[in-house]
Amino acid sequence: MVGKSQLKRIRRLHQKKYRNELGLFFVEGKKTVQELLDANLKPFEIYYTEPNFFSKIEDNYFQITPSELKQVSQLKNPNGVLGVFYMPDLTEVVFDDWVVVLDEVRDPGNLGTIIRLCDWFGIKNLVCSKQTVDCYNPKVLQATMGSIARLNVTYTDILKFLEDTSLPVYGAFMDGDSVYTTKLPVVGILILGNEANGISKEVENLVAKKIAIPQSKSQTTESLNVATASAILLSEIRRR
Amino acid sequence: MVGKSQLKRIRRLHQKKYRNELGLFFVEGKKTVQELLDANLKPFEIYYTEPNFFSKIEDNYFQITPSELKQVSQLKNPNGVLGVFYMPDLTEVVFDDWVVVLDEVRDPGNLGTIIRLCDWFGIKNLVCSKQTVDCYNPKVLQATMGSIARLNVTYTDILKFLEDTSLPVYGAFMDGDSVYTTKLPVVGILILGNEANGISKEVENLVAKKIAIPQSKSQTTESLNVATASAILLSEIRRR
Repeated sequence: MVGKSQLKRIRRLHQKKYRNELGLFFVEGKKTVQELLDANLKPFEIYYTEPNFFSKIEDNYFQITPSELKQVSQLKNPNGVLGVFYMPDLTEVVFDDWVVVLDEVRDPGNLGTIIRLCDWFGIKNLVCSKQTVDCYNPKVLQATMGSIARLNVTYTDILKFLEDTSLPVYGAFMDGDSVYTTKLPVVGILILGNEANGISKEVENLVAKKIAIPQSKSQTTESLNVATASAILLSEIRRR
Repeated sequence: MVGKSQLKRIRRLHQKKYRNELGLFFVEGKKTVQELLDANLKPFEIYYTEPNFFSKIEDNYFQITPSELKQVSQLKNPNGVLGVFYMPDLTEVVFDDWVVVLDEVRDPGNLGTIIRLCDWFGIKNLVCSKQTVDCYNPKVLQATMGSIARLNVTYTDILKFLEDTSLPVYGAFMDGDSVYTTKLPVVGILILGNEANGISKEVENLVAKKIAIPQSKSQTTESLNVATASAILLSEIRRR
């Protein structure tokens, strides 16, 4: 049996404010919940509509009715499992590899994709401006899969962070030099900007080198989406 | 004044069947409508809630009330403009450049991103299996921006298409050779597969060379999303 206070808590976790207050977040779907369990994230409570979803039912696993799940889900069609997890502890940003910095990335799908890409390419540290969408937003988590457990995601004043670093700072710009011909160091910082406005003026002042992905001459596409641009730039960093 | 038959037609265009029957499709939002107009796609009818959205009101532009727009929109919060366009004429697939082939890409956002990427990298021809999501699906168009007007998107029996081609056929696989060290020709075919299952067995039999994006050793991300994989592979093709 699921109590009203439990349902109320999950509904609260839709909001960033309560996620931070409680140090908890939730994801939906058997596959995503299982991925977070496999990645050793600590479950606070797991809810399931069918007992055969899990091979072993722990003390903090609760069967929930489909209509209760619908009340707390953020999906139009909830799919049977919802897991509440403890936020993992953050570690200090270590400067022994490339660090990705996000300047106000707002779209949850984009942040989720960038987290998954960082994980794929073995980037350990993602530093986000405070205006960047919350990485524990359920829509972000839907796109990251288990990657969130393997990445150190920090929210901070990135101006201060960039002022303090001794690493070379690269930024993605429409009018930068071609990334294909730019020499990239073994360790550095890559900044990606907001979906509509790119990297802000204040942050731009702290960029040592502007890089760009060359466009085919005849085309007129305005820009690449920030997540696909990240894919290409991280691939270039790792390829060499 | 907007007639009931007009509203009914737009609602029908939510379905692929009627889009193909009428040779029409629709997009929403001032920016996207303007992009299609700028890309010289022929408008059938344009609907707007505020007359000052357009500098010139043509005969086939109609003012619509917000509540009427809500009835025909597929967005939760319609944003003032909806444009119905004629589908552009398709041209024959010309084999003077790389051709991208999609084997059952199902997610509208992924197809939209791939279309935008092809446009960015100057790929003219996208050949889709019949099970691939319709490129005139409104959610696809939301992600393509104006790119749909500059690309030749064909739906066909890709097995037959691949059997008939004389171009070298490359396919994206998890266990392929590193794309970074694979020699890529000036002209070829790149196949990308389904989100969950990758490239199907039948299609795999027609692939001459399997390529992959190398993953950082220590990581365990299952796979890259097909749209981000496309970004990296097309970048590799164009970089050389």
